[in-house]
Amino acid sequence: MNILIVNPNTSQSVTDLIEAEARRTASPDTTLTMATAPFGVAYIETRFEALVGGYATACAAAEHIGKFDGLIVAAFGDPGLAGIKELFDVPVVGMTEAALASACLLGQRFSIIAISNRIQAWYRECVAANGLSSRLASVRSLQEPLRDIGSVQEDHSARLEQMALQAVEQDGADVIIVAGAPLAGLARSLKGRIPVPVVDGVSSAVRHCESLVALSAGSAKQGSFARPPRKPNLGLPPALAKLLD
Amino acid sequence: MNILIVNPNTSQSVTDLIEAEARRTASPDTTLTMATAPFGVAYIETRFEALVGGYATACAAAEHIGKFDGLIVAAFGDPGLAGIKELFDVPVVGMTEAALASACLLGQRFSIIAISNRIQAWYRECVAANGLSSRLASVRSLQEPLRDIGSVQEDHSARLEQMALQAVEQDGADVIIVAGAPLAGLARSLKGRIPVPVVDGVSSAVRHCESLVALSAGSAKQGSFARPPRKPNLGLPPALAKLLD
Amino acid sequence: MNILIVNPNTSQSVTDLIEAEARRTASPDTTLTMATAPFGVAYIETRFEALVGGYATACAAAEHIGKFDGLIVAAFGDPGLAGIKELFDVPVVGMTEAALASACLLGQRFSIIAISNRIQAWYRECVAANGLSSRLASVRSLQEPLRDIGSVQEDHSARLEQMALQAVEQDGADVIIVAGAPLAGLARSLKGRIPVPVVDGVSSAVRHCESLVALSAGSAKQGSFARPPRKPNLGLPPALAKLLD
Amino acid sequence: MNILIVNPNTSQSVTDLIEAEARRTASPDTTLTMATAPFGVAYIETRFEALVGGYATACAAAEHIGKFDGLIVAAFGDPGLAGIKELFDVPVVGMTEAALASACLLGQRFSIIAISNRIQAWYRECVAANGLSSRLASVRSLQEPLRDIGSVQEDHSARLEQMALQAVEQDGADVIIVAGAPLAGLARSLKGRIPVPVVDGVSSAVRHCESLVALSAGSAKQGSFARPPRKPNLGLPPALAKLLD
Amino acid sequence: MNILIVNPNTSQSVTDLIEAEARRTASPDTTLTMATAPFGVAYIETRFEALVGGYATACAAAEHIGKFDGLIVAAFGDPGLAGIKELFDVPVVGMTEAALASACLLGQRFSIIAISNRIQAWYRECVAANGLSSRLASVRSLQEPLRDIGSVQEDHSARLEQMALQAVEQDGADVIIVAGAPLAGLARSLKGRIPVPVVDGVSSAVRHCESLVALSAGSAKQGSFARPPRKPNLGLPPALAKLLD
Amino acid sequence: MNILIVNPNTSQSVTDLIEAEARRTASPDTTLTMATAPFGVAYIETRFEALVGGYATACAAAEHIGKFDGLIVAAFGDPGLAGIKELFDVPVVGMTEAALASACLLGQRFSIIAISNRIQAWYRECVAANGLSSRLASVRSLQEPLRDIGSVQEDHSARLEQMALQAVEQDGADVIIVAGAPLAGLARSLKGRIPVPVVDGVSSAVRHCESLVALSAGSAKQGSFARPPRKPNLGLPPALAKLLD
Repeated sequence: MNILIVNPNTSQSVTDLIEAEARRTASPDTTLTMATAPFGVAYIETRFEALVGGYATACAAAEHIGKFDGLIVAAFGDPGLAGIKELFDVPVVGMTEAALASACLLGQRFSIIAISNRIQAWYRECVAANGLSSRLASVRSLQEPLRDIGSVQEDHSARLEQMALQAVEQDGADVIIVAGAPLAGLARSLKGRIPVPVVDGVSSAVRHCESLVALSAGSAKQGSFARPPRKPNLGLPPALAKLLD
Repeated sequence: MNILIVNPNTSQSVTDLIEAEARRTASPDTTLTMATAPFGVAYIETRFEALVGGYATACAAAEHIGKFDGLIVAAFGDPGLAGIKELFDVPVVGMTEAALASACLLGQRFSIIAISNRIQAWYRECVAANGLSSRLASVRSLQEPLRDIGSVQEDHSARLEQMALQAVEQDGADVIIVAGAPLAGLARSLKGRIPVPVVDGVSSAVRHCESLVALSAGSAKQGSFARPPRKPNLGLPPALAKLLD
Repeated sequence: MNILIVNPNTSQSVTDLIEAEARRTASPDTTLTMATAPFGVAYIETRFEALVGGYATACAAAEHIGKFDGLIVAAFGDPGLAGIKELFDVPVVGMTEAALASACLLGQRFSIIAISNRIQAWYRECVAANGLSSRLASVRSLQEPLRDIGSVQEDHSARLEQMALQAVEQDGADVIIVAGAPLAGLARSLKGRIPVPVVDGVSSAVRHCESLVALSAGSAKQGSFARPPRKPNLGLPPALAKLLD
Repeated sequence: MNILIVNPNTSQSVTDLIEAEARRTASPDTTLTMATAPFGVAYIETRFEALVGGYATACAAAEHIGKFDGLIVAAFGDPGLAGIKELFDVPVVGMTEAALASACLLGQRFSIIAISNRIQAWYRECVAANGLSSRLASVRSLQEPLRDIGSVQEDHSARLEQMALQAVEQDGADVIIVAGAPLAGLARSLKGRIPVPVVDGVSSAVRHCESLVALSAGSAKQGSFARPPRKPNLGLPPALAKLLD
Repeated sequence: MNILIVNPNTSQSVTDLIEAEARRTASPDTTLTMATAPFGVAYIETRFEALVGGYATACAAAEHIGKFDGLIVAAFGDPGLAGIKELFDVPVVGMTEAALASACLLGQRFSIIAISNRIQAWYRECVAANGLSSRLASVRSLQEPLRDIGSVQEDHSARLEQMALQAVEQDGADVIIVAGAPLAGLARSLKGRIPVPVVDGVSSAVRHCESLVALSAGSAKQGSFARPPRKPNLGLPPALAKLLD
Repeated sequence: MNILIVNPNTSQSVTDLIEAEARRTASPDTTLTMATAPFGVAYIETRFEALVGGYATACAAAEHIGKFDGLIVAAFGDPGLAGIKELFDVPVVGMTEAALASACLLGQRFSIIAISNRIQAWYRECVAANGLSSRLASVRSLQEPLRDIGSVQEDHSARLEQMALQAVEQDGADVIIVAGAPLAGLARSLKGRIPVPVVDGVSSAVRHCESLVALSAGSAKQGSFARPPRKPNLGLPPALAKLLD
């Protein structure tokens, strides 16, 4: 099975983090292909940045059309996800929705640990769009500016662990979601030290994408996730334009 | 006061419809500037098309930076709206949110009349993102393929009126929203024939944008609608890149 | 255009505050007429006081029937508003619903700054009746007794500003609503000092009422906002009784 | 125990219907006193009529202050109820909230059978204000004009029974609420013929009011149901004015 | 009237507490029969314990079939309640739903005071299953381990009172619910010292069960609370098996 | 990896259906063990039947303690699931929650196709307990009595397919969930003929359980899914009693 993972952020260092965690999780017979957003920002924290990253992800994925059995949009907040699902007749999985699926199977209420204060609103709206606000115990985040997006985990490990514990003890979280591609892999190191399950977005996305491909539930020929109706278009990258024809 | 209206669809004929209705509504001392999405699809009906249209709208608006006091995103469904609001320190108003504001001030529950079946899911999700699902009585839409996006109103006038009446009588709508830029102006012709208020998105957007500019409530320097934090970016159109620096 | 503004509180000093702010906002060609509740309490803070104030507002407005193109119910909490909308075939706008409309167009989540602890429950229920609880970040209020309803703004200016800042920093408010007719105009003085948009109820109501009149969306002949069905009535003030016949 | 029942409608015939049903239900040691709204409309169907009826009910009840241990607001839709609860330090029960309490104890989802189409919106909003929309299976109502408010039950008995059956079979109702004082007693005659519990508002209100008095849970000295704060008032009936001092 | 009260906990001391409070409340002509769960745990705090207690309650009640006119499931959290309602054609009332009914009739928002931290999740989910989360102001609980389930009230009286006051002052509770059979009767002793109504589950359940029996609204022959369809069963206690045939 | 699958129904024929579908899906290195409820009913359709089935499932699973890495509760409606999760420190997955997870990853709104009218209420409440009511497009079910629970698929294949199509075309379903263990495998045969993804509960549960085991997110030592606190218990099967000590 071939899975394409697109990083909607433009940082290669984040792509590398995602790839490392994804390879640790993927089944032996899964082939992973990585791609990085061809345009956009280094690290998505806001709705506008997600808008750009979502479109960039669609453009990147379109380049690989026909070569993947499943697609992962690998930024927490799932930039452009619902739209991208319309484009392809294979499973398309977002990091947030995958983490939410894991968390919901492991407990009733979850908390999200995030890397910046600004990112909270976008994450909350993403949870709401998934219809799961009633299961969100809290979002907690680092408050200080980040020195380097590639080393957030090491720079702030004590604070990240402390926030996870507070979410359990003060917010009633049954499960902790460690959010954001820059925190890929943190769940593993936190696990022994947090008294509830800790969920990672990248590994959840890889597993759930593999599952959906394996379940082969069929694709949408009708309904709101079918390919957009054919109509005139303009100024799109050739791969994308071809996809819409 | 200068208001920039960007049509997220690429059809000039739709831009012309919007402009005609906007000029009818705008105050004498308001100067309107029209822009059309530089890339995307002729008429947005799906989440993916809205993703492209949202980004295209941001690109188009960035070209005019400093020359407008208010910005209108003139497609129902408000493509990219929340993200675009982060970019500018002037009021940014979407056609849907403007129509919803008018409808909420005119009654308790509203129905949306739309031009295609496919467009319904996107509209519903837009209403939900506005937190107003509990006030949505129904969405009703044309089912047949459209001959020409520029002449929907004339081609289907009897059916559109019938759907509005059904929404009042069967769905309990207190207000009718005629949705979609191609239906701009239809509210005026329907009005005498529908026994409840009928709301148009373009004229609502123009009025509410003028109001917000006049109220000068201030812009977001903090919180989730402040300008995105400065960070490395890549491959953005120059006007947009400049805006993020 | 003629707009009638009724103050559901019986305090002339509050009517004067409302009028001052309304005149600052109204278009040059709008004629404002002020009225004060003929019975009720000096300042509405509770559901019962709102019940009386709502009926008193209806009585006052009925006296002016035929002389206004739009009606504003000028107390936060919108006493009697939905009922009063049934009576008149012109737009009727409440201070709260107008402030909520402005706030929703300016951001996703808003906080309300209020003048007394007691008033919070009534405001929360009003937001809920508007279907907007999911967008309410918080309500914060003065706790101490008020020396004089006409001078709340000056007496408590530092505390009011502090609460607005806390709402932004601690509650995640994208927009601040300064609630209550006694705080009319405070938004203007706060604006430079609060890092998000600040919304005032009176000026929002005036602008939105003017917009609805200008949009002339039509009135309700059917549905739940049509005039109440004719039936025997008893003991109503003559102007009101006439309206129901 | 003394219970005062106020009919917010001005029709003596409806008061008589309410009284007959209430006497059938009340405990032997309960003394019932009836009062009829001193002003308002013959039969409340709309929000405005409820506004008047709510205030009229408060005025009527204030005349009896000190002479009752519990108060019932005897119109479905509970006009003015939350406000009236603030006034008295004895239990105040509305017909709708009482019927909802019975229905919720008898099943998960309920349907409401009503006497006019117009009344539906008001009822729905009342259920929503009680926070119980998720348990409302449907509202069904007579559509035709009523010949006489005092004889609705006899005039439309077959249609009322049919609607109750449809609610069970088509809408998934576990319980039927027969709504509106003019239908007081209908539940008894329907009961054998409907395959789920049928709830009557008047008898529910009498029983629940007796229960609350007996439970003597205490009254609100603080919080949002405490007596409104003392403040200047104007033009209120003497009994009401005295209550607020 | 005969009412059977089943304690889903296996502690006889808790059954005694419940019985004492129930006898204080019951009408003179009500005969109470007590039963204790024949298997399960001493005091239910978790979902699993409630699962066992719910089934044990059904088994206990089935032994008394034909001898009661109403049944009370006397543990807060209402273990197995909705299922048990399907079994009997007489009213079945849970302690939580009864307390919620009382609280909703006495105010808009309520807080729950509970005896252990662990029990909070179960209570919250029970409130949610009743559709009343929007009226829940807070849940507050003792944090320390309990010395003896039979003497919680005396051991922790000061802390319990303090939590109730905090719920009023900090959480906006209009009503306090004292939750859990081990706190039966505490409401009476707290009442004078808490400035809002205080509701007790046992006495509410007794009163509301008596009311439902008296109202004789009929039982479910169809719909989701009718007796389960006949089908093969296996390994059930004889009384229960007989009930299903 | 060892996975224990417990059928909460007592029918061996249903266990066989589940096993066949599970073996088709499981990874080569997964060992499946099947168990059937030792007591209860042949096929669970109601809340009471689910109460018994949930407890029976716990009893059955406790017999296998220490021999499984993951547990599947294999009846749609997830009888006893949240309680059972508290008992084991390995992942416990329900058929419904697994199907919902798959459906949510494949689209926005889903419909459930069920085998009897009676079962609908239980399914709806299960979806609500998962917090996903806003994504439920509809539940459609067979209406006629079932000849044989083991042959539902063949007996009603045309009707089941028709209901799935209606859910897509009339209810706006993006995904179809074929619900109930007796329909295990139907998704595969329907797939080519339904124009949207079709989800099966058994195969979803197997895949998601395998994923959770592989992700090894850790178990709950605190919070609401930790093992219930030690306390006296009575009359439990030895394996279960041991688990609680």
